[in-house]
Amino acid sequence: MKSKKKSNRLKIIPLGGLEQIGMNMTAFEYGDSIIVVDCGLAFPEDDMYGIDLVIPDITYLLDNIDRVKGFFITHGHEDHIGAIPYVIREINVPIYSTKLTDALIEHKLEEHGLKKQVKRKVVSFGQSINLGCFRVEFIKTNHSIQDAAAFAIYTPVGTIVHTGDFKVDYTPVYGDPIDLQRFGEIGKKGVLAVMCDSTNAERPGFTQSEKTVGRALDTIFSENSQKRILVATFASNVDRVQQIINTAHKYDRKVAVEGRSMITFINIASDLGYLTIPDHTLYELDEMKNFPDEKTVIITTGSQGESMAALSRIAFDTHRKIKIKPKDLVVFSSHPIPGNEKSVTRIINELYRKGADVIFQDTHVSGHACQEDIKLIYSLVRPKYCIPVHGEYKHLVAHAGICRELGWDNDHIFILNSGDVLEMDENSAAVTGKVEVGNIFIDGLGIGDVGNIVLRDRQHLAEDGIIIVVLTMEKSSGQVIAGPDIVSRGFVYVRESESLMDEATEVLNEAVDNCMERHIKDWSKIKASIRDSLSEYVWKKTKRRPMILPIIMEV
Amino acid sequence: MKSKKKSNRLKIIPLGGLEQIGMNMTAFEYGDSIIVVDCGLAFPEDDMYGIDLVIPDITYLLDNIDRVKGFFITHGHEDHIGAIPYVIREINVPIYSTKLTDALIEHKLEEHGLKKQVKRKVVSFGQSINLGCFRVEFIKTNHSIQDAAAFAIYTPVGTIVHTGDFKVDYTPVYGDPIDLQRFGEIGKKGVLAVMCDSTNAERPGFTQSEKTVGRALDTIFSENSQKRILVATFASNVDRVQQIINTAHKYDRKVAVEGRSMITFINIASDLGYLTIPDHTLYELDEMKNFPDEKTVIITTGSQGESMAALSRIAFDTHRKIKIKPKDLVVFSSHPIPGNEKSVTRIINELYRKGADVIFQDTHVSGHACQEDIKLIYSLVRPKYCIPVHGEYKHLVAHAGICRELGWDNDHIFILNSGDVLEMDENSAAVTGKVEVGNIFIDGLGIGDVGNIVLRDRQHLAEDGIIIVVLTMEKSSGQVIAGPDIVSRGFVYVRESESLMDEATEVLNEAVDNCMERHIKDWSKIKASIRDSLSEYVWKKTKRRPMILPIIMEV
Repeated sequence: MKSKKKSNRLKIIPLGGLEQIGMNMTAFEYGDSIIVVDCGLAFPEDDMYGIDLVIPDITYLLDNIDRVKGFFITHGHEDHIGAIPYVIREINVPIYSTKLTDALIEHKLEEHGLKKQVKRKVVSFGQSINLGCFRVEFIKTNHSIQDAAAFAIYTPVGTIVHTGDFKVDYTPVYGDPIDLQRFGEIGKKGVLAVMCDSTNAERPGFTQSEKTVGRALDTIFSENSQKRILVATFASNVDRVQQIINTAHKYDRKVAVEGRSMITFINIASDLGYLTIPDHTLYELDEMKNFPDEKTVIITTGSQGESMAALSRIAFDTHRKIKIKPKDLVVFSSHPIPGNEKSVTRIINELYRKGADVIFQDTHVSGHACQEDIKLIYSLVRPKYCIPVHGEYKHLVAHAGICRELGWDNDHIFILNSGDVLEMDENSAAVTGKVEVGNIFIDGLGIGDVGNIVLRDRQHLAEDGIIIVVLTMEKSSGQVIAGPDIVSRGFVYVRESESLMDEATEVLNEAVDNCMERHIKDWSKIKASIRDSLSEYVWKKTKRRPMILPIIMEV
Repeated sequence: MKSKKKSNRLKIIPLGGLEQIGMNMTAFEYGDSIIVVDCGLAFPEDDMYGIDLVIPDITYLLDNIDRVKGFFITHGHEDHIGAIPYVIREINVPIYSTKLTDALIEHKLEEHGLKKQVKRKVVSFGQSINLGCFRVEFIKTNHSIQDAAAFAIYTPVGTIVHTGDFKVDYTPVYGDPIDLQRFGEIGKKGVLAVMCDSTNAERPGFTQSEKTVGRALDTIFSENSQKRILVATFASNVDRVQQIINTAHKYDRKVAVEGRSMITFINIASDLGYLTIPDHTLYELDEMKNFPDEKTVIITTGSQGESMAALSRIAFDTHRKIKIKPKDLVVFSSHPIPGNEKSVTRIINELYRKGADVIFQDTHVSGHACQEDIKLIYSLVRPKYCIPVHGEYKHLVAHAGICRELGWDNDHIFILNSGDVLEMDENSAAVTGKVEVGNIFIDGLGIGDVGNIVLRDRQHLAEDGIIIVVLTMEKSSGQVIAGPDIVSRGFVYVRESESLMDEATEVLNEAVDNCMERHIKDWSKIKASIRDSLSEYVWKKTKRRPMILPIIMEV
């Protein structure tokens, strides 16, 4: 949908791919200006075989590229910054974010060899950026990563407050609590709409302070003074790492860090001063052998059960340097993200089996606002319209329920699907259209070269394997002079199913002979006959439907 | 491991496949007698592509087939009865179980055309069966399916109490509460070991009565009198279905049932008198149109998000007869089994998107004993040895913790891995050996013809697809006379990657020419050269590793 003609209404368009994928990207559009909030990626769903990452289809932005002024990034998590290296190659506009977020973006661009080409600007809390028709103010919030920002987006038709992912933490580990005063002040002046985080909208009460984890860690360390302690957590949660280091220091333990992303984050965060490491606390993994086990702590990645991450390799004995010992204690300072429960449990079981003790409860707090925190934001900002964002559909629905409970009418609450165009001005708001959105798959170096057809083939191959039928025909005579030969992969274990394969070859010979007798020369007909006869035979014998691929060669 | 010589010690051997698969099967062995408790199947893990079911490898039982006297089944869930049709073909001995369990086994055998060949016996609670050296007494318990039994297994060296899956329900919906008196009485006489359910060993407190769900349903029905109500639950939970029917009847609603397994269970349970359906309550789905929506209830399968089950088809609009309407209420009377969270959420999101209301909290209770219930059993039975069973490894570890808390020493608690041989007599117990165990995969009609090699191929195919290289050689000259031709599936979308495929063909031509120039006639060497050159090229260009399959034909 190209929208060339200018409009005196604000458009808000979520562009983050298809439903439930979770990559964050929202366009704000007025007149000749488009700004984009966040540029995230998603990790593949279970049925996206072989896919490494998913990024949003940006056709709409490309169609309107002349009007796109810049990206504003709320915080440095992958689902908010991960698509930048791919998107920025096609839409090279400035990126605005806070200090840590900017450093993480810089690191990402550097990895992709794009650092020099892209213009970035670090913005402080309280500071505003004017861009086209918009002014964007950065407001301090709290989240499970440092330097998270909410945005007040001042538009010609009114102010939009976008919370980003946030929590309310009155006692954060580092830096200031969320700037609730500013939310109140902006609210008092009048806000057209709030776009607020819905992740925990199903959870009653308030989200606990990050500091409560510190207290839990303290208890664990004091009760396990005879054990080596391994703590698995999110690399990006610098405050968590800080608390682990502080507790280790208090109990006179040396710390080593394992996992590439963990090391990256610690380096970036300490360079910027977001992480303070006491002298003689952090050591290389190789140096740990110089200290008694009960005086060491290993902080590691892999708390989500990721099969290639450090913790999984440690649990399953494929880690080069760390072996689980019966007197180890492994602490999961994390909670499984939905979908990861089983892989996390697999690792916990394996750690127990190796004799380690495992703690995986009460050692994590969420980075997202619960119901009472969400109510607090609405009560401070009191917008005209409510637009629940960030969460699965059921979270958005729960969030809408909170808004209704607070007194908003249903027609002032908008649950948007990806691609929906929400048009608003001072007096009205409505979904007026739909733009093209979708998922672009990244597999290895390929961006978008694996589409739905390839995925469907992979699913088919995964389900029942493939049977390949090859035959050679003589061009001059049109006769089959070699084959049909059968090769299969992922279908049955051939050595134990010889008779099945022999019979299948007979069925094929018959089908091909039949074609020859009827003087069929059309390859597509011969292939169809091979496919039909073999698939019927295989289904009858095995109740399976492998992919059947006839290949004809000509000499 | 063949053990021909008789022993005056009892052996307990869990045979339920490899770790974490969860199919239940345990051999009890003394002298010339082996009895087997349960004969369950497992559903495939995510990485078991295309596999329908998993059953245990029964090599050990086959090696000792002359001594196997019979199967004792605790209850009718698939993980306790599902492997019977496969196992009984090879070890045809009598099957002992309670009435409902027996009816479910009968149904299963009938489906497999085995009903007449297999000897079954229905056992009442309180009744004992003498078989070889053993006497097995059936004791009433509660669980999420009717007619669940615990066993007191009287052996020459002492009594083993096996709880099966159980909960303590003082107010069951149908029939008696668990026979705690008998547990106490047997305990008083002296028990050698308890094998007790560990599923909820991590959960503090007591498991709530099934009746609490009835009260929750009542509230839901009374608050939603204007809506059609769909309730999704486990087909096997007859008491739950009874409570839904009772509530519907109370609120003057008509009930229809959807989902094949749900209908099977309701038929079997009502035939046996375990389910009472009030007159003019149950109707065919097609008859529902004769009643106003707000006077109907549909009970459906699919509460675990299974993609082929009724609820999923209803949510995604592929059900032939039921369409979601904006005024529907869908109640999940279930809790996602670990690993199913995401599929359940997918359906919930879709139902919300279609405008339905969804309730998925506080409408289910567990069928397994929590920590305090487990403590109750130990306090009644007071065994010499504790053998935590039924649960993932982490649950067994938590269960062992409860035993220690109750005063048992570590050397009186045995966490067994599948295949472990636990030998015991009146005075001692120790793991003394290991027998062969494993997973047998069922795929369509095939039992065990898909093994690890086939699975590995399917994983490889799923990840990056396949590239097939075909060439025809002339026998007389040893020259390539057609090809090499390339065909790929699941690798890239070829139409958009033409240059990649063209270049790959060039690489192959070079490799084959090189072989010809060097007069290489050995097909395996030519294939290796094809594989190496192509895989190197593809990796360099795409960072992917598709399966590469060279096929040579000869004319």
